[in-house]
Amino acid sequence: MPSPDIQGTQRGYVIPIGGAEDKLDNQEILNKFVELCGGSEAVITVIPTASQLDDTGARYQKIFEELGVKTTYSLPITERSDAQKPEYLTTLEKSTGIFITGGNQLRLSTILGGTPIAQSIRKLNAQGVHYAGTSAGAAIVSQHMITGGSTGIVPTENGVNLAPGMGLINTIVVDQHFNQRNRLARLLSAVSYNPFLIGIGLDEDTAAFIDHNNVFTSVGSGAITVIDASDIKYSSMAEARSGDALTLLNVKLHILAAGGRFDISERKAYVS
Amino acid sequence: MPSPDIQGTQRGYVIPIGGAEDKLDNQEILNKFVELCGGSEAVITVIPTASQLDDTGARYQKIFEELGVKTTYSLPITERSDAQKPEYLTTLEKSTGIFITGGNQLRLSTILGGTPIAQSIRKLNAQGVHYAGTSAGAAIVSQHMITGGSTGIVPTENGVNLAPGMGLINTIVVDQHFNQRNRLARLLSAVSYNPFLIGIGLDEDTAAFIDHNNVFTSVGSGAITVIDASDIKYSSMAEARSGDALTLLNVKLHILAAGGRFDISERKAYVS
Repeated sequence: MPSPDIQGTQRGYVIPIGGAEDKLDNQEILNKFVELCGGSEAVITVIPTASQLDDTGARYQKIFEELGVKTTYSLPITERSDAQKPEYLTTLEKSTGIFITGGNQLRLSTILGGTPIAQSIRKLNAQGVHYAGTSAGAAIVSQHMITGGSTGIVPTENGVNLAPGMGLINTIVVDQHFNQRNRLARLLSAVSYNPFLIGIGLDEDTAAFIDHNNVFTSVGSGAITVIDASDIKYSSMAEARSGDALTLLNVKLHILAAGGRFDISERKAYVS
Repeated sequence: MPSPDIQGTQRGYVIPIGGAEDKLDNQEILNKFVELCGGSEAVITVIPTASQLDDTGARYQKIFEELGVKTTYSLPITERSDAQKPEYLTTLEKSTGIFITGGNQLRLSTILGGTPIAQSIRKLNAQGVHYAGTSAGAAIVSQHMITGGSTGIVPTENGVNLAPGMGLINTIVVDQHFNQRNRLARLLSAVSYNPFLIGIGLDEDTAAFIDHNNVFTSVGSGAITVIDASDIKYSSMAEARSGDALTLLNVKLHILAAGGRFDISERKAYVS
């Protein structure tokens, strides 16, 4: 049975993390996730599918237990048939929080996409279960997921590869390891394909805690770069040849260090 | 005597180049500079002071001669006393174009700063002589010159070092090798110190041809990134501690590939 004290009609938090979140020292992001999920009463299920290391699930279970969570699970889903197992679905439905680890986001989309597990994650989040995902687990939250692209600052035609993600949130496209891997170019390219998308670039050890009103707060030691191209005056995307530097006029840029906030629906940045 | 057909009351072009301009193949930037200076009738003086290689001046003289310029000079200024020599000033005043090479911009500011040569460059440019400078020679054109700083995307308090430049143009701060060396962070830091500055990030083989109306056109194979912080809603610069990621809300960003234009006085980007 789903936990009655957390599930309701209000969407749970969606928490994409830019990878390399602090696991040893102050653990600010993971700790805040645990608190949202109910602290010691939380039930956290880890899905380590993106990772190809056998111990990733157990490692996160141990971290959450050290943060005081009494009940943790890990679902060792490594192929599509695993993502149909009724016992895994039963476990998942007990969760107050779901955590998807890093690794390769194409493993997430190819193994989980369209399965009962993916459907259940969407349903549970809509009912109030909190979702956090780091690195690949962050990329997958958006409907349009970045799987690769050019590094640097200047966007190019063909400078990003997109694939369908899990779609917990529309209208955003999420990138991670953002400052560390110099990914502005590919996020600008993604947003230029269709400026209705808001680009969210997450630094390592930095997370967007997105609430049910689609307002998020930046948490962690880095920053979140927000690209809003909705007021764009000109883009050369449609005319440019593959690899050409793009011309983009009037892009709005926000850099949100810890405490900075952004309203996705209203496209407004502020400090609380 | 200054060339009478080029000097007047209208400022000459100021042409910062992002470094590594094409010298072998189409030479678009250097060729356009030569045309502005009078083509075969141009008189181009190279100042290789930033470089510590003995042949830099001669190398650029050869390039300009291969582009059809009959008269070229190089001034081997390597210390402050050289920058006072009357014979160098006499040569400089014959120029229709002045070209400052790459190297270390602190050599330019420490050796040329406040000397008769620097005063003459400013005066000649104000009278119509064109100025082009690549890499260090580009950095020096602004009044506030970037000499170092953090790489990456996210700006930090203390993330850039500034020094006084030659000041051919006010209200801009120029950075070079921009996409190649991931310098958005330091340009954002520079602009955050005082948002009256417009940040101009020049990719390699890319130049801003700034006319006497302070309107520039992007020329070359890369792009020019323009940062306009004049409408900024919030900056944490004044409160942040050294090294902290900054929060910056409502920065305007333009990416100008070849043909893109920007009006520095009006702070408006457009395509011609």
